[in-house]
Amino acid sequence: MQERSGGKVQRGAFSVPGFRVAAAMSGMRYKNRLDCVLIVSEAEAAAAGVFTRNRFCAAPVVLCREHLEASQGYARAVLINAGIANACTGEEGLRRARRSASQVASLLGIEPNRVLVASTGVIGPQLRVEALESVLPHLVSALRPDGWLDAAQAIMTTDTVPKTAWGQTPLGQTTVTCAGMAKGSGMIAPDMATMLAFVVTDARITPDALRFWLGKAVNASFNRITVDGDTSTNDTVLIMANATAPHPLITDPSSSEGTAFGKLLTDVCLDLAHQIVRDGEGATKFVAVTVCGAKSRDRAARVAQTIAASPLVKTAWFGQDANWGRIVAAAGRAGVDFDPNRVSLFFEDVCIFRNGQPVQEGDLEERASAVFRQKEIHIRLDLGEGMEEDTVYTCDFSYDYVKINADYRS
Amino acid sequence: MQERSGGKVQRGAFSVPGFRVAAAMSGMRYKNRLDCVLIVSEAEAAAAGVFTRNRFCAAPVVLCREHLEASQGYARAVLINAGIANACTGEEGLRRARRSASQVASLLGIEPNRVLVASTGVIGPQLRVEALESVLPHLVSALRPDGWLDAAQAIMTTDTVPKTAWGQTPLGQTTVTCAGMAKGSGMIAPDMATMLAFVVTDARITPDALRFWLGKAVNASFNRITVDGDTSTNDTVLIMANATAPHPLITDPSSSEGTAFGKLLTDVCLDLAHQIVRDGEGATKFVAVTVCGAKSRDRAARVAQTIAASPLVKTAWFGQDANWGRIVAAAGRAGVDFDPNRVSLFFEDVCIFRNGQPVQEGDLEERASAVFRQKEIHIRLDLGEGMEEDTVYTCDFSYDYVKINADYRS
Repeated sequence: MQERSGGKVQRGAFSVPGFRVAAAMSGMRYKNRLDCVLIVSEAEAAAAGVFTRNRFCAAPVVLCREHLEASQGYARAVLINAGIANACTGEEGLRRARRSASQVASLLGIEPNRVLVASTGVIGPQLRVEALESVLPHLVSALRPDGWLDAAQAIMTTDTVPKTAWGQTPLGQTTVTCAGMAKGSGMIAPDMATMLAFVVTDARITPDALRFWLGKAVNASFNRITVDGDTSTNDTVLIMANATAPHPLITDPSSSEGTAFGKLLTDVCLDLAHQIVRDGEGATKFVAVTVCGAKSRDRAARVAQTIAASPLVKTAWFGQDANWGRIVAAAGRAGVDFDPNRVSLFFEDVCIFRNGQPVQEGDLEERASAVFRQKEIHIRLDLGEGMEEDTVYTCDFSYDYVKINADYRS
Repeated sequence: MQERSGGKVQRGAFSVPGFRVAAAMSGMRYKNRLDCVLIVSEAEAAAAGVFTRNRFCAAPVVLCREHLEASQGYARAVLINAGIANACTGEEGLRRARRSASQVASLLGIEPNRVLVASTGVIGPQLRVEALESVLPHLVSALRPDGWLDAAQAIMTTDTVPKTAWGQTPLGQTTVTCAGMAKGSGMIAPDMATMLAFVVTDARITPDALRFWLGKAVNASFNRITVDGDTSTNDTVLIMANATAPHPLITDPSSSEGTAFGKLLTDVCLDLAHQIVRDGEGATKFVAVTVCGAKSRDRAARVAQTIAASPLVKTAWFGQDANWGRIVAAAGRAGVDFDPNRVSLFFEDVCIFRNGQPVQEGDLEERASAVFRQKEIHIRLDLGEGMEEDTVYTCDFSYDYVKINADYRS
């Protein structure tokens, strides 16, 4: 399947001018594995964040919002830990998040509000802030430009593979790099399996323009793999742009430079989002669900999300069953008043359902079944009512999903 | 756990004055098992139905609506088949449904619009109406007052047990019986595992009053085990009231007689709904989720349904994990703007979470775990903002759910 991120975005190791990173073992929950990360920008960086909309919003999210407001959109460092989410921890949780940020600030000699924090792991327990603090001096001394693969490993929880993505684009007389790492899986209910992503770039861009493009990029990527804006207590996407690249400052997001940067950022986020889907808990298939021919993009999105979130649809995919009945029935309950007699459904280029009824053709069932033996599947539902479309990315629903989530306390 | 249906409603065999029923094998999809049912009222009966809200609405649903309108709320017979849903079958599907109803009408010597029909099974194929017709004479000759257990067996698809419920209430100088059968499982996404229920009563009641109470009863029962009004292509609840009992006609649903009848009908529907949850595909636990202390019942319902539908919450239950974090995080994404610092959570009478934070007590974890070793669990989330509440009934999410739904083409 064609991924929109195209060939420009790469995975694996990278470095971005002016950024250093380190990972360490705090032992606060996991033993003998990397579980905390410090990202530092050598220069003051424009910064922006997109956060969970869950009513139970973890302490690190509260603190990030507070610091980004106090700094008016600037940051120098991000501290991340895996193992304890610092969610549902009340005032004490916020105090501990604040204390860890202050410790980083004092070690780096910067303002506390220039430090952002993120956590993932078990909800409820207090952050073991003394364990975190004991490794901070080591983290600071271990900072290096090429530490991102270790960092991507350190932020994992139920993830099975570390996730990085990076790309470059010419901007003015120079080349800008945009790179990031992410953690997250559990694509059945991604809302509760915390999704974290951290992106850094050497672009020169104002905080306002950066915020504009981060919102756009997240909406086109991480929000296309979730359903109904569902989010966990800790979901966080952060970006720092440290202006190291010598191009003119981007102040207007719609300028050609702003657009080029936004395109690169979107590609990086989309690639990270796809990696999260592919690493879905127990997932065996990657499925893109496009709803087209809609009167509005919102109608298309609602139908696509209902299909992508249906456990009955997802278990059929796991069974390699070209079950169009469950797909159209899921579409029918999305709360969108389309005309069922104008609906058609395609598995890749195989039209299995046309104008509200199954297509009757000799080898159609066999061709449809062949599609569902693929690892990557594109299904397309045409509402036949307009010109708008939307696509969401999801995975199937396997025995292992149940096993992982019945056994893991998160 | 206390079920609201109380002790008045019984399960198993029953008969209701003036009704006869028969089941037979049409062989249209299943071999060597009962797969079709005919219910007949000796006298003209007031009738009402509640149907799927899915945009893809099966032919039998279309025909029921048409016949109930044409008859102004009267019926004499219901024909049901399992195996083929007659959904997404276009004009030809409707023609076949109509033809099967006409055949029943002509065999019984009644108006075609006095015959209601219902189907469950695979979506897409045309109803094998000739197979159905070939057993109709046998069905008619086999009609008897006590055939309901066979009938409840005949309408099953992925159900593992037949489901019947019946009760009686004094009304005026006499006693009225209300009894029914249902099929349905797949509680993870009940919307797509068709739910059918058929209720008969000897009460004397106008079609308007009957419709009023059926709506109320369904809302308090079958709608409490589904999520967001989700429905399959075929979901149908039908009732016939044949006025055989010699009490004064109920014309006002709010009269004391109307209320007594409505209470009995609700109890029967609630008991059938609970049986459907207990027979959830692969279910090992029955869970009642109450959200109380809400500003409105709608807010309570939205939070309860989000919790009850969360695969992460349901897999934790299967793992016997007293995982309050997933429950509160699901509540937090329900789209209801409650104050997280006023929320408390109870597993039975164990308060595990109070005012937005986990309770810290010596043996609390152990007491909470003990609750989740039970087969039946009541959890209660208090929003701390008002006096309204709502309860939904659901089950856990097991390996077998995935197995059943990866293997079964429905």
